[in-house]
Amino acid sequence: MATRITPRDTNYSDWYVDIVLQAQLADYSPVKGSMVIRPRGYALWERMQRALDDLFKETGHSNAYFPLLIPESFLQKEAEHVEGFSPELAVVTHAGGEELEEPLVIRPTSETIIWSMYKKWIQSYRDLPLLINQWANVLRWEKRTRLFLRTTEFLWQEGHTAHETAEEAQEETLRMLDVYARFAEEWMALPVLRGIKSESEKFAGAVSTYAIEALMQDRRALQAGTSHFLGQNFAKAFDVQFQNRDGGLDHVWATSWGVSTRLIGALIMAHSDDNGLVIPPRLAPTEVVLVPIFKTANKEEVLSAARSLARRLKEEFRLAVDDDENNSPGWKFAEWEMRGVPIRVELGPRDLEAGRATLVRRDTGAKEPVALEAVPGRIRELLDEIQTGLYDRALAFREANTHHPENYEAFKALFNNGDGGFAVVPWDGDPATEATVKEDTKATIRVLPFGNEDEAQGKRCIVSGKPARHMAVFSKAY
Amino acid sequence: MATRITPRDTNYSDWYVDIVLQAQLADYSPVKGSMVIRPRGYALWERMQRALDDLFKETGHSNAYFPLLIPESFLQKEAEHVEGFSPELAVVTHAGGEELEEPLVIRPTSETIIWSMYKKWIQSYRDLPLLINQWANVLRWEKRTRLFLRTTEFLWQEGHTAHETAEEAQEETLRMLDVYARFAEEWMALPVLRGIKSESEKFAGAVSTYAIEALMQDRRALQAGTSHFLGQNFAKAFDVQFQNRDGGLDHVWATSWGVSTRLIGALIMAHSDDNGLVIPPRLAPTEVVLVPIFKTANKEEVLSAARSLARRLKEEFRLAVDDDENNSPGWKFAEWEMRGVPIRVELGPRDLEAGRATLVRRDTGAKEPVALEAVPGRIRELLDEIQTGLYDRALAFREANTHHPENYEAFKALFNNGDGGFAVVPWDGDPATEATVKEDTKATIRVLPFGNEDEAQGKRCIVSGKPARHMAVFSKAY
Repeated sequence: MATRITPRDTNYSDWYVDIVLQAQLADYSPVKGSMVIRPRGYALWERMQRALDDLFKETGHSNAYFPLLIPESFLQKEAEHVEGFSPELAVVTHAGGEELEEPLVIRPTSETIIWSMYKKWIQSYRDLPLLINQWANVLRWEKRTRLFLRTTEFLWQEGHTAHETAEEAQEETLRMLDVYARFAEEWMALPVLRGIKSESEKFAGAVSTYAIEALMQDRRALQAGTSHFLGQNFAKAFDVQFQNRDGGLDHVWATSWGVSTRLIGALIMAHSDDNGLVIPPRLAPTEVVLVPIFKTANKEEVLSAARSLARRLKEEFRLAVDDDENNSPGWKFAEWEMRGVPIRVELGPRDLEAGRATLVRRDTGAKEPVALEAVPGRIRELLDEIQTGLYDRALAFREANTHHPENYEAFKALFNNGDGGFAVVPWDGDPATEATVKEDTKATIRVLPFGNEDEAQGKRCIVSGKPARHMAVFSKAY
Repeated sequence: MATRITPRDTNYSDWYVDIVLQAQLADYSPVKGSMVIRPRGYALWERMQRALDDLFKETGHSNAYFPLLIPESFLQKEAEHVEGFSPELAVVTHAGGEELEEPLVIRPTSETIIWSMYKKWIQSYRDLPLLINQWANVLRWEKRTRLFLRTTEFLWQEGHTAHETAEEAQEETLRMLDVYARFAEEWMALPVLRGIKSESEKFAGAVSTYAIEALMQDRRALQAGTSHFLGQNFAKAFDVQFQNRDGGLDHVWATSWGVSTRLIGALIMAHSDDNGLVIPPRLAPTEVVLVPIFKTANKEEVLSAARSLARRLKEEFRLAVDDDENNSPGWKFAEWEMRGVPIRVELGPRDLEAGRATLVRRDTGAKEPVALEAVPGRIRELLDEIQTGLYDRALAFREANTHHPENYEAFKALFNNGDGGFAVVPWDGDPATEATVKEDTKATIRVLPFGNEDEAQGKRCIVSGKPARHMAVFSKAY
């Protein structure tokens, strides 16, 4: 494939789509708003799933599976929930050749169907906590869609837990936010801000929503995961009570939390460059590609050395070998860069003569000759260096693009004429102020970082001049 | 939980449902025909998925994900396909608050949406073979449902491959049938018959369907997996042509193959008993449960020994420890038997005095004292013995229940008054004969085993008396 990617500086949005399509991560489907996740994109999702699933199980959760179709009346049992999701529902009205008595909606999220089951399963405090996660597809009918970032159907996981007390549920909410933050930072090499959402941005049906937010290379924010404290809202809607330790009856306390295939979009936009995808090693389906370089005269010699090196590398790394004779080395280098493989090992006749191979980093392009026997050890080091390097680079970028405008004029200039990024400013806590900012700049509150109330003390809201209640992080967002 | 399971002999169908519900594998949902897979059932599915997925990847397949919703018109492109699936479709007519221009159906299987994409991806023989698998939920509106065995929504995998030649596609079809058979026999301890389906039982849209068939304890057959040779049917329906090696244009050759959560039903019905679930060790989420037996006086001593043994066992086995003080040992034994854990290790004061533990097999109930230091080694052996033992027992059962009735009267007696099982008989190959048998006995042709034509030579059809073309395996089926 001749790789032609629009440079980021020319058109960021085209750059993103070019990478998704040309690295064959996903494709448009004939069903409006839905996409196809192609094998290379799905392989990334599989590695993310495996890592997240391990983290969920370490924290005591089990997987289960609930029905795709939910009776329409279930959503109506929680007032905010139905208001939030109604506009996005896909509705099954006919099945088995007949009109259904009650329409069924395709799950936009599963709180209602799950809490209808929890009513059957929870009688006593001995049944709590109930810690369940589901890997599933969900559907939200979106008007404007974008590959991975916003599609009508997407894949995700949704955790739904039930607890005896508000405190326990709060703890769980924050525990899972922390799991998401660890996953983002340690696996995706993606630094994230942790905090609480403002009222206007919280999940429909939650008491409070916590989120991790990351900054993309175009200086817009992306919400990478959310964890909701649901209070007793769903327990009350579905009448789920349990016998408490004192013999009385209480409504159960709840959380829910989710991340989706949107994370693949975040991964692409955080690290990739004008040559294509860049994948952090821990999530790379292929960590190393070995490219033997040969002509007819030295073919056997080079290939035999390559085979022997490949045997050794395969023991330890997720390896691809590209010994296709139809493509030139230059074409192959570009192709594997496009695909984002973290390390390329070149092995040509001159390398062989010198008893070495050439290692090339995908992230920096740096090349280094390495003695053949030292190659596995050096790869091991390099994978760590790349993983850390990507994180550090993303963190430096975020810090360079986190601003503290002194007044509302400077704030507006940042988003209307400037580069954007994160703006951390004192806010009076009034939704009307938030709405004004959105109208003036399209920036919204991404998150109120932990401890922000203390920091806001004595400060004045940058918009209204009233006493500030929060330090808020504003940004334009995906 | 007080375990009350209907004995198999009293009512086999109640026995099955009791096990599913009481072992908490699944539960009925408020959506008619759909079920909830509870954590213990899903843990089984996860182990099955992992093993199958490894087998698919070893044979060169990658995973991908295609849309849930399919335009209704796509199904109509393949005449047999739409005829087969139309009665079972669930239809989305409204979404995002509006009526859709074209109704979308929830996938009953994904050939049509996938081949609409293959048209984009396949141009040349260099793009072939294309070997893709999808793990997904599908929906078929069934009138009569049964937990795991037949539900409107179920989880499955569906492989969809594209090839240059008919021969290659045929090879792939049989390769995947073989993968299924190996999985059934080596992991599920379930002996299966391999063969081809008669015309009346083949997949809607296939040229030929191959299947693995197993015999359940009530002597009815269960189709455990199918692999279809689709010829060029879907390539023609979606106009998928490729430039072949001679520069000409050919339609692509196809296969598809799938297994589903129905396998969990098969697993239960093949091995379980009146005490509950029996799980083959390789698929058991928990291989060993350690039950310390103590009274107040010796509690600390026993628990400390149990902790030390548990530490050792955890290194090697999937272990549960039941040191709950609220339940008696007898209650625990029954509970863990119900859950199907292959080996129970009892550790009481008398065991400790003698420096041993007591190992109990779930499949046979056999108990043996084992010196503490020898416990891990003995568990390792026992897990193998149980895995093999379950297979051998199921095979012996199938052989004891495979009949060769000499005439149609004996055949009818077998299914109408007798025990049923498999009946292997010469068949003239006429669908009318097959229909007669079904009407007379409810038995259908489960499979025409490989090599059956040769065996049929010189024989006469048991029903019509005409020259036989096949040796057919008849059975009542799930």
